[in-house]
Amino acid sequence: MTAPDPANRIARQLHFVVEIDRLKAVLRQTRLTDGSRRENSAEHSWHLAVMALLLAEHAAEPVNLPRVLGMVLVHDLVEIDAGDTFCYDAGANLDKAERERCAADRLFGLLPPDQAEELRGLWEEFEQGASAEARFANALDRLQPLLHNARNGGGTWRENAVSRERVLARMEPIRRDMPALWPAVLRVLDEVQAAGGLGPPAAAAVPTGEGAL
Amino acid sequence: MTAPDPANRIARQLHFVVEIDRLKAVLRQTRLTDGSRRENSAEHSWHLAVMALLLAEHAAEPVNLPRVLGMVLVHDLVEIDAGDTFCYDAGANLDKAERERCAADRLFGLLPPDQAEELRGLWEEFEQGASAEARFANALDRLQPLLHNARNGGGTWRENAVSRERVLARMEPIRRDMPALWPAVLRVLDEVQAAGGLGPPAAAAVPTGEGAL
Repeated sequence: MTAPDPANRIARQLHFVVEIDRLKAVLRQTRLTDGSRRENSAEHSWHLAVMALLLAEHAAEPVNLPRVLGMVLVHDLVEIDAGDTFCYDAGANLDKAERERCAADRLFGLLPPDQAEELRGLWEEFEQGASAEARFANALDRLQPLLHNARNGGGTWRENAVSRERVLARMEPIRRDMPALWPAVLRVLDEVQAAGGLGPPAAAAVPTGEGAL
Repeated sequence: MTAPDPANRIARQLHFVVEIDRLKAVLRQTRLTDGSRRENSAEHSWHLAVMALLLAEHAAEPVNLPRVLGMVLVHDLVEIDAGDTFCYDAGANLDKAERERCAADRLFGLLPPDQAEELRGLWEEFEQGASAEARFANALDRLQPLLHNARNGGGTWRENAVSRERVLARMEPIRRDMPALWPAVLRVLDEVQAAGGLGPPAAAAVPTGEGAL
């Protein structure tokens, strides 16, 4: 039997569709805008996709929107096996790449080979930030939790006493790849900071590092 | 001031992005595949979008995939105001269209006018089933809860004693617009029925209506 079996192809696709339901059980650190609960990675991915539809016009370089959509839809799938790694947790980030590579092998390997290659390619492109689409998708991935934290009193910044400098460093992809949004980012940080939702500021007027953290 | 104000445009876009976070709190009847909790409409929309990426090749007519993606990403947004209406609840479906139209006016109205028109157009196209893209998106919207119910012991069918005939009628868009998937649908129903996960079957060998319901 060298000819591909259509029923087998469909069976593999449906197996994958059922398997990725588990992304709805992967919790991120970020809470919903009303603070009621932590967000999961599936609904987060949906949010990024709608943001991509609306904000693609602000990408620093022109982007292929369908490619961005594919990327944000699959960018967190590896968390089904590897879990969500909090961006401000340096220790947990040490073996993140290896855990996620194993997860990609297993998960994308459930698909027919051509689709496995296509979706894995989108995920790798996102991870490597090697294209205008990947950089824009990454900027969206930074902006979304910022908007959440802005609405729920500082959220993960307040809980972890993250300083303005660390947040600004984390948001750098927005400044670089979606510059039209940067004034809004600074305004959000001003408001959250004024309400005490950020960690202690650096002592120096011109920050040179992690400041009081 | 007749020239559009870029900062105002961005403010409207971000307001909408924050507002639609509320879709994550709209619960559907369907439970996750592991049965642990009910699914929300945001993560459901994400699931449909990934399914669209994988299954577009099975659409009965060729579809514009980016258009399908836009459609499934926004198809449930009106539920933020109008709530989710259970498909097998005839009473609640009576004023559904009016409630959803009001919701569309308010929600899409938050956006800059061109994007309001674009997203509302996608939603209306989906609702009216007036294109190959809309019909395919609708077939995905029927398939996804079927796959969930297949994995959690009958789910909403068992809870509501829904008969095989009613499920088959509900799944008709799959037979028509994604026919390659129809054998898989029948196999799922056979399995769930054998495990007692469907309501009482019709008495007649050739079903003519709602049977025992």
